[in-house]
Parts: sequence; C-alpha cells; structure tokens
Amino acid sequence: VSAPIGIGLLGLGRIGRLHARNVVTRVPAFAAVGACDPYAENVAVELGIPVFSDWQALVSAPEVAAVVISSPTELHAEQIIEAARHGKHVLCEKPLDRELATLPGILQAVDEAGVVLQVGFNRRADRNFSQLRQELSGGAIGDPLLVKITSRDPAPAPLAYLKGSGGLFLDMAIHDFDMARYLVDAEVVSVSAAGSALLSPEIAAIGDVDTAVTTLTFDNGVLAVIDNCRQASYGYDQRVEVHGRNGMLLVDNEQSSTVRRADAAGYHRDPLPNFFLDRYGEAYVREMEAFAAAVAGTAEPIADGIDGARAVEIAVAAELSRKERRAVTLEEVRR
Amino acid sequence: VSAPIGIGLLGLGRIGRLHARNVVTRVPAFAAVGACDPYAENVAVELGIPVFSDWQALVSAPEVAAVVISSPTELHAEQIIEAARHGKHVLCEKPLDRELATLPGILQAVDEAGVVLQVGFNRRADRNFSQLRQELSGGAIGDPLLVKITSRDPAPAPLAYLKGSGGLFLDMAIHDFDMARYLVDAEVVSVSAAGSALLSPEIAAIGDVDTAVTTLTFDNGVLAVIDNCRQASYGYDQRVEVHGRNGMLLVDNEQSSTVRRADAAGYHRDPLPNFFLDRYGEAYVREMEAFAAAVAGTAEPIADGIDGARAVEIAVAAELSRKERRAVTLEEVRR
Amino acid sequence: VSAPIGIGLLGLGRIGRLHARNVVTRVPAFAAVGACDPYAENVAVELGIPVFSDWQALVSAPEVAAVVISSPTELHAEQIIEAARHGKHVLCEKPLDRELATLPGILQAVDEAGVVLQVGFNRRADRNFSQLRQELSGGAIGDPLLVKITSRDPAPAPLAYLKGSGGLFLDMAIHDFDMARYLVDAEVVSVSAAGSALLSPEIAAIGDVDTAVTTLTFDNGVLAVIDNCRQASYGYDQRVEVHGRNGMLLVDNEQSSTVRRADAAGYHRDPLPNFFLDRYGEAYVREMEAFAAAVAGTAEPIADGIDGARAVEIAVAAELSRKERRAVTLEEVRR
Amino acid sequence: VSAPIGIGLLGLGRIGRLHARNVVTRVPAFAAVGACDPYAENVAVELGIPVFSDWQALVSAPEVAAVVISSPTELHAEQIIEAARHGKHVLCEKPLDRELATLPGILQAVDEAGVVLQVGFNRRADRNFSQLRQELSGGAIGDPLLVKITSRDPAPAPLAYLKGSGGLFLDMAIHDFDMARYLVDAEVVSVSAAGSALLSPEIAAIGDVDTAVTTLTFDNGVLAVIDNCRQASYGYDQRVEVHGRNGMLLVDNEQSSTVRRADAAGYHRDPLPNFFLDRYGEAYVREMEAFAAAVAGTAEPIADGIDGARAVEIAVAAELSRKERRAVTLEEVRR
Repeated sequence: VSAPIGIGLLGLGRIGRLHARNVVTRVPAFAAVGACDPYAENVAVELGIPVFSDWQALVSAPEVAAVVISSPTELHAEQIIEAARHGKHVLCEKPLDRELATLPGILQAVDEAGVVLQVGFNRRADRNFSQLRQELSGGAIGDPLLVKITSRDPAPAPLAYLKGSGGLFLDMAIHDFDMARYLVDAEVVSVSAAGSALLSPEIAAIGDVDTAVTTLTFDNGVLAVIDNCRQASYGYDQRVEVHGRNGMLLVDNEQSSTVRRADAAGYHRDPLPNFFLDRYGEAYVREMEAFAAAVAGTAEPIADGIDGARAVEIAVAAELSRKERRAVTLEEVRR
Repeated sequence: VSAPIGIGLLGLGRIGRLHARNVVTRVPAFAAVGACDPYAENVAVELGIPVFSDWQALVSAPEVAAVVISSPTELHAEQIIEAARHGKHVLCEKPLDRELATLPGILQAVDEAGVVLQVGFNRRADRNFSQLRQELSGGAIGDPLLVKITSRDPAPAPLAYLKGSGGLFLDMAIHDFDMARYLVDAEVVSVSAAGSALLSPEIAAIGDVDTAVTTLTFDNGVLAVIDNCRQASYGYDQRVEVHGRNGMLLVDNEQSSTVRRADAAGYHRDPLPNFFLDRYGEAYVREMEAFAAAVAGTAEPIADGIDGARAVEIAVAAELSRKERRAVTLEEVRR
Repeated sequence: VSAPIGIGLLGLGRIGRLHARNVVTRVPAFAAVGACDPYAENVAVELGIPVFSDWQALVSAPEVAAVVISSPTELHAEQIIEAARHGKHVLCEKPLDRELATLPGILQAVDEAGVVLQVGFNRRADRNFSQLRQELSGGAIGDPLLVKITSRDPAPAPLAYLKGSGGLFLDMAIHDFDMARYLVDAEVVSVSAAGSALLSPEIAAIGDVDTAVTTLTFDNGVLAVIDNCRQASYGYDQRVEVHGRNGMLLVDNEQSSTVRRADAAGYHRDPLPNFFLDRYGEAYVREMEAFAAAVAGTAEPIADGIDGARAVEIAVAAELSRKERRAVTLEEVRR
Repeated sequence: VSAPIGIGLLGLGRIGRLHARNVVTRVPAFAAVGACDPYAENVAVELGIPVFSDWQALVSAPEVAAVVISSPTELHAEQIIEAARHGKHVLCEKPLDRELATLPGILQAVDEAGVVLQVGFNRRADRNFSQLRQELSGGAIGDPLLVKITSRDPAPAPLAYLKGSGGLFLDMAIHDFDMARYLVDAEVVSVSAAGSALLSPEIAAIGDVDTAVTTLTFDNGVLAVIDNCRQASYGYDQRVEVHGRNGMLLVDNEQSSTVRRADAAGYHRDPLPNFFLDRYGEAYVREMEAFAAAVAGTAEPIADGIDGARAVEIAVAAELSRKERRAVTLEEVRR
C-alpha cells in the first residue's frame, strides 16, 4: 500500500463538505491535507483537516498533489488554471464555467500542465447508469436509436439561487446533457429545446423556465430527449431509457426500501427520496475513487475537461434554442 | 330494447374487418346491414353482411343509418361528405385526410348535415388511457405540466406501405398527437420535431424517418413530448406519463400474462404483444359502443371532426418542423 | 361447421347464470336447449333458453347432449349419476360432493356410461396458471421442489353461507388443492393444516376457521403450501409460485388497469378487483370451450372426475389435520 | 464524544471477520482491542487488532468491555458464560447452542452478571424488515393474521458443513423463526413442519432435508408459514409478507441495480445477489451499532437471550414435527 495522495479542498459548501467527508472516511487513497472556505472553516475543523485562509496558498502547498474545487462557479476557471499552473490535478464541480469563451483557456492550461482534470458529473459513477452504459456498449440492445432521460427535482431551489444559477439548462439539465453524451458515446450536433414557467410567476419573471424538454441530435443520427422539471411531489426523479435496434435498457429510480403496502385504497410504496445525496451518495464515493485512480495514472478520469466543455455548450445551445424557437447547432454556439 | 341501428361498412381491410366483426358480435346496438369492399367481399359473406358493390349505393341505402369508413385515406373525404349529404352518421378511420386544405370542407359538410362524425382514435377508448384522463381531470395530480408519450411499433411496415403513408408523423404519430390533446384538454400552439432514419437506408431514401421526437407546446404552457420508433424488438410499446404539479400518473404497457420466471440469468417476463389488436382489441369494441351512443344521441363522440382535423394539423406541422429545423406554429400551417 | 351441441343447464344461481350466459353468447359450439332452476326461471327467459320445471325431464330430454350442473352441492351426486345414466356428458361445479363415501358411486356411474365428466376447476383455464403449467412441464425451471399458493377472498361470505359451506378447506381451499395437483402433476400423500378464526367470533362459533395454512406432501417429495384467508382488504388475491431446481415461476395478480399514481405520499395503484368474475371471467369461457372440446372428443376434460375426487379427499384430510394437529394421509381418509 | 468501548473478538471466520472489519471501520463507538482465532490470526493482524492466543485471556482482559462471539457453535455457551462471569457484554452469533438443555444456564449467567446479551439475528437490523415491523406495529394493516417468509439460499453449503450444522431448521430456518417472532411480537405455541431431500441423495443420507415448510401458531392465533430451500438458482431469496385485517405489507428482495433490459425474448433483470453479505452488509453494521447502543445503555439489544433461546426451541420443535409428522408444542420441547 502506497502513501495516500495529498488532497486540498477548495470550497466546503454542501457538495464540498460531502467531498471532504468522503476523502476523510471513505477513500484511503487520498489524505485531506488542507481545506479553504472562509464561510465554513468549522467543517474543516470537525473533520480534522488543516485550514488554509487563502486558496492560492492551498493550491501551491507542496503537500497538495490534487485539489477538489467545489467553490462558486465564478471561481472555477481561475482556480483550475492556477492549480494546473502548480502542477496539481483537479476535480472540479460542474459547470466548468457559464461562459463558453472561458472554456478553451481552462482546457489549454490543463493540457499544458499535463495534469488530470475530472469534472464532477457524479452520475457517471452511479451503479445503475454505469451498468446501463456497460451493457449498451457490450451490444446488449444493438445500436442505440433513442435515449430518454427524465430528471426532476423534488422542489425548486430558492429564487435567490435560481437567479444566479444560469438557468435550468446550465444549472440542472447540464447533468442530463452529459449523461446523454456518456451513454451515446458520440457528439451532439444540434439542440432543440422548449420550456415553460408553470410553477410560479417568479420563475417566469427572472426569464427562466421550470419545465423543459430538450432534444439532442447526435452526429450518428441518434436522438436524445430530456425532460426536466423543478418540482416532483413524489421525490427526486432520475430515470434513463435507451431504445436500441434490438431492445431497450431502462434504469428506474432507486427506492429507500422494498416495502410495499396493500389496503382497501390499493397498493402503495414510499415516495422517492427527496435529497440528491440519498440518491447519489455512493456515486460520489465512486467518483472520488475514480479521481484517485486518474491521479494515480491507472485510469482515465470518468469525465474530463472536454466532457465538461461539451455539456456547457449544449446547455448554452438549449437556452438559445428555447428563446429563438429553432434548432441550434453546437458549431454555431462555439463560434 | 330498441331496434338496432343499421350500419354500413365501407372498406373491409385489416381495420374494416375488425370493425365489421365487432359490429356483428359485440355491439348489439348496431346491425350490419351492408358492406362494400371490392377486394374483400368474402369478409362480408363470412359475417353474413349483405354485400354492396358500390359504396355510393351503400351510403344512400335507406336501411343504413350510419357508416364506418375504413377505406384507403384517399377516399375518406369524399365518402364522409357523401354520407353526410345523405344524413348518415360517420365513424371514420384516421387520418381524415392528408391535406389540410380538405379538412374544412369535411367539417362543413358534417356540420350542415347535422350528423355525428367520430374519428377512429381508438386509444381514447382504451381502459388505461381513459382512466388516466379521468384521474387527471379529477385533479389527482393537480395541473399538468408535462406529458410524455412513448409509441413504438414492433417492426416497420413494408416499404410500399410506408411510401404512401404520408410519413411517420401523419401515419403513426398522429395517434399520439391526439392522445396528447385528449389528456391535456387544451390546444397546441407550436410543434417542434426531430427525426432520423436509422433502421434502414430505404426509409431515408423515401424521405421519411423511423425514429422521431416531437415536442408540443400547448396554449396553457403545458409541454408534451412524444417519442416514436418504427421498431421495438420487445413488442408494441405504448406508454403514457403525465407529470403534474402535485404528482404523476403513468400508464404502462399491458402484458399477455402475469407470469414471470427467475433463473440463473435473472428475472424474466414475456415481451409485449406484437400486434396492435392484442393491445387495443377491447378499445375497438368500446370505440364502437361510444359511436353507438353518439348516434343514439346519448353521448358526444369520443373524438369528433375537430379532433380529427387538429391531429392532422399537428402532424403536418411536425413534418415541416423536422425539415426546417425550427418550431412551427399551428397558425402557420393553417393559413 | 357442425351443428351446435345441445346443453341443459341445471341451476341458475350466480355461477349457473354465468355458465348460461357464456353458453349463449361466447361458445358457438354449444346451444342452450334447456334450463332448470325453480328460483331463477327469469334468467332462462332473459337469455331465451327453454325452461324446464323438472331437472329429471331436462337430463332425459333428447335434445340435451350435455349438462352443466351448478345446483346446490347436495344435488350434485344425484344429478351427475342420473345424467350419466341417460348418456349425457357433465360439467359439474366443485365440489363433487362433501362426503368421500359418495365419490366412488359418481365415478363409477360416469365410467360405466362412458360420458365425459368435467369438474368446474375454472382456474385451470386461467391464462396465467395454464401458461405457468406449460412452462413448468416444458422444463423451464427443472424439477419442481415447492409450490406456494396464496388464495384470499376479499371478504367473508355471509355466516349463513359459511355454516353450510363444509368449512374453509372444502369450500374455498379446494380450488387451491386442485391447483397444486394441476401444477405438480403428481399425487398428494399427506396433508398438514393449521387454522385460526381471527376475523370474527361467529366463525369460531361454527367451528370453522378464516385463516389457514395447508402443507401438502406429494408422492415425488414435492411440497406445496397454501395460505388462505377469508378477508383481504386489498381485493381478491390469487398468486402462485413454483420453485424448481433451476428457477422459479411466478403468477402475480391481474390488475384492472396499468395506471399508477405518484404523489407526496408515494406510488399507488388500484386495489385488486373484489369479484372473482372480474378475475376469472375469461377463464370461465375457456373452461366452457374446453368442455365443448371434451364433449366433441377432441380433448380430454381439463379436470376430470378423479381430479374432482382427489380435491375433496385433500380437503377432508386438511380439516382432519387441523383438528387433530397431525399430518393426515390420503390413504387414511380414503378408508 | 466519549472514548470508544473496548471490544474483544472471539472467532475470525467468515462472520467474525465481518464483525471485526465493521468494528474497525464503521462503528466508532467501539474499538477493537483484541481478537482470538488460532486459525485466522492474520485477519487480526491485517486489521491492526492485538492478537490473543487464548480466548480466556481475551474475555478477562481489563481493556475488554464487550465481546463478539463468532466462534464455532460448540463454544458459544462456555464463552458466553465465561464472558458474563467477567462482567463483559456479549454479542453472540446464532444459534446460542444446539441443545435446549444448555440454554437456561446461559440465560442465568447473563442475568446474574447483569450484562447485555445480544444474539446475532442481523435481519432484525435490515432496513426493509425493520421498516415493515415499524409500519405493522404502527397499525398500518391492523392486527396481523398471517406471516409468510420465504428464505432460500443460492446453493447448498458443502456436505461437511451440513453434517455438523444441526439440520436445516437449526442452521438456516432459525433466522426465519426469529423473524416471525420479531414481526408478530407474540410467542409461538406450536410448530408443524414438513421437509424433503430433493436436491441430492447425500442430504437425505445424512438425515437432513433441503426443502421445508414450517407453520407456526402463535398464542394470539396468528399463523406464520416459512418456506426454505437450500438452492435458488436466481440468487439469495429473502422475502416477507404480513397479511393483516386491514391490509398487507410486503418486503421484496433487494436488487443490485435498477437496470432492466427488454428484447425479443422479453423483459429481463439481473438475478439476486448470491451472497448474504451483499444482501445484509448494511444490516450487519446496524446490528453492531445496536449492540453499541445496548452496551452504552441507551437502547435494548435488538435481539436478547430470550429471543435466542426461543428460536432454538422452535427449530428443535420443527425438526421433531417433521420426523413425527405432527404438530409439536414448544411446551413439550421445553420439558
């Protein structure tokens, strides 16, 4: 057993805290050697991680071999580039950035430094989706024809959050855009989206939508359709279906138990868990293990910088398509 | 019990034969008093229905109070108009016509004659979909936000049929467009479609697609998304899901038995029935009963001429949208 | 097409009426040429069946080739024997009789007359159970090891009925005993039963039970376990499972639709239908068709006199086992 | 946070190793301060637990506050009694002992010492079964009438193991007997069992069975029926159903993913996991946490010495019932 790799944690908000805890308790290949979050130093203290008051100091510290960036999106680009410059490997939460113009600089910095950049598309590490992909690529249903993704949050985030989120496509659907690419294993050429703000006038007032359908056309002709909603009374709804020439693969939701009840009103089972950590808790651990393997050089990152950039491009195209009511090509948004 | 209503059957192909058999054996409110199909007179003979060699004679015969039109689509408009002129009620298979320009004349003739026109959207009479609609309109899940319809045939029809079919949207998806309207109970304002010909180069060669996604935007902001495919190895796949403010309603496929098998390879159940008559056999009976009620004046037809016309408009808009890669409004195609 | 076979109907109670209607409307191989039930002559009149005031006259009428006996159990033996003496084929509802001593006389009369005796074990004609049996006998799961049958009524019959029913085993579980034999295709050697009267003191007061478990040991070592209850708030519960050397076959309940609903309280589907005719309506038609085939000589009856007698023996043994708290062999009760 | 409680591990076989690993990595309330297993000292070394070559030394060591006994069944009684004498709390694997005569001495020793004795009925800690019990005791389905437990191993253990196992009832069904008591929350008065050796002549040759059905009658009239089999080709099958006056509660198997596949042969999902640790891995952690709570005095043990003794009594009665083909009361075996 080799010595654990030193990890620095940038940002200890909801996701950053989760990554920190996983590094400390579940991934022995890593050791948390520093953390920086001016608003959440107590988290680091509780987990016994040395506190840095300055993220630049953290990314340049010699004991840090890799960083996990869970800071506000506005900081991602700068932090990735700075970490890369110091030769540190990076796991960065999605989205890489909200501006397409920033992406090439990120990719170039990482490339020149020769470090690993893994993007936080944790769903790729979910046991269900990764098994689906494996069966699909193993030929279980022949060539894919159509991918269907349903992705609905239990309830809308607070309006303050939504305002700064970049909109439903960039904030929420981006995970599903990545999932479609992950499964189809080809590139999207055009995007067509429609959306409505049905849940509350406030969402309409900020120019966003709460319900949306996005259709992706891939370069091999495969279609993918994603339906999103900011509200699902029955819980956090995450389903995938791939229809292929010789069959269909489906991933249904996970439930918190297998208990069912039958009575005079019918058959019943519990609603889905509301919280994304209940659904993807183990996937976050596997994602961190995958990052450890990538840093150790024994595997490719499960989602790299290109994957991160492509998802942003699709989200930007979807937003444009919704507004202009026409299909938008990725080529167009890349210009 | 009043005397049965005299029915004349125009066309005894696959569907016409089914209607004839249902009239004879399952719907006592009707009596089959005449049938006309130069290519299938034996069907009439076997069922003991008087044969007419001329459809004009049939629609004008005094013993005929209502007609069922299952003839080739090219004849629909003329036959409906002629039947209406003779004061006969009409059940006509979909589509009413492939040309939008013809629709107003049909509706006007029916209107002026004051006869019933029911369009053959048999799925409205399916026990599952009608129960879903009833629960939805009863408020079970609050206001609808999003409708998802999956509709896949077991295998592509012969190329000769496809060539004259008017394309996937007008031939196949039209049922789903009607289902979306039936469930949402509002009007579609714009249509956005994408499609691919992935199954065979022949389908591409005739300018059609075999896999498609269509997004409908309703005037109340509700979205509907329909995915179609000409091939599903696991059988005739017909599912519907309505996501609402307070919940979700789902209709899954029916299976030919509840038998499951578990073995070292896993858990298994039979594929879906391949044949639409296995899936919708009872729905066709209920559709005919609904027509009988409409003719008797005790109920509205389950799908009327406007419903038939709207579905054609949506299909035409979908085809245009697919080709021009933009959202198409119904207002635009109606002009 | 040959002329239909003349059927006489003895008894027009709940089941007799159903058989009569099926003969008239669903089984063209039969023609209902006479019916006898002093308490329900109106049923015959409504269905247009000639009324006989005397069952002996009916079973001896020349136009009657076969009879369906749905009369009270007390009359079964006499009516079967009389019908056989006149050379009429017989479909008799279960149980053949409540007394073991009577059974040999029935079987002998039928045997000597060379007529068909089919016993009304309608569940053998259910599409699910017959498919399960076919897969089992086709080797889908290897040799069977264990059969599990769950059979629960929606609610207890009225106490007056229960008093004369012969008890839970002879009245209700007898169907399940036959199902076990049908599936295992071997003979039962011993029976062990336990029961409780938990639903109401009245059931205990008449010496009966409302909840019971019966274990059958077959001559090939296979075990079958049957659980019965007179009450199931969620509907009429009819499930079967066969565990074999190489796998398991399961038949789940049928549901009246595939609609499911999800909301903040969870996922829901309708309760099971309460009425056995909703569950087994089609099975009764298939049972009558099977009888027609047996009478025509083109197939064996789906359950013959021996099957009818064996089920009574098992039920009698189960009742004895419950009372004496020990396993009871069929050999013992047959003496 | 108080200091962790010192735990000594007796036995490091398959289960002992699991307990050791859980103590070390998952249950911070405990510290593993010593382990003893002459055949598996490497396990202790790998986990960094101090090795004791003598279990007597371990149970008397001052740093040991509680012991986990996973040694061969023959040693259980002696080790529990010795541990109790030294004032150590005990978590002991099932069965407490194979001889009924030994049980009172165990219970007395624990009682006199005032220590906690928890028995290793890990399934009580399974999230599904504990939820079922909670719903049941909360009145979700009214009074229970009937409990059904299906419990099947993927494949028979080696013959050498089976020979010394005490038989199917004492080795395997004992878990299910405890589950029935756990759910019904009443005491068993009589036991009726039937069994067959169908899988291999070797099992018959050692006087054991591989397929069995056991019916328990509780003092409140509730019935429980348990079906066991040493082989299930489709995996480790663990299901429970409770039928009550107002409804039914069901626990189905857990699956390793929610992936399903549909193709021309039907719909498919993976077999169940074969290994009990895949099914009950988390339950073992929760069991250890429950032991920690019991030792800390903040909760009762989830299964105590009486529970352990009752399960052995039921198993002994079941074996006797099978051999003598009659219901056996617990009173009788206790004498």
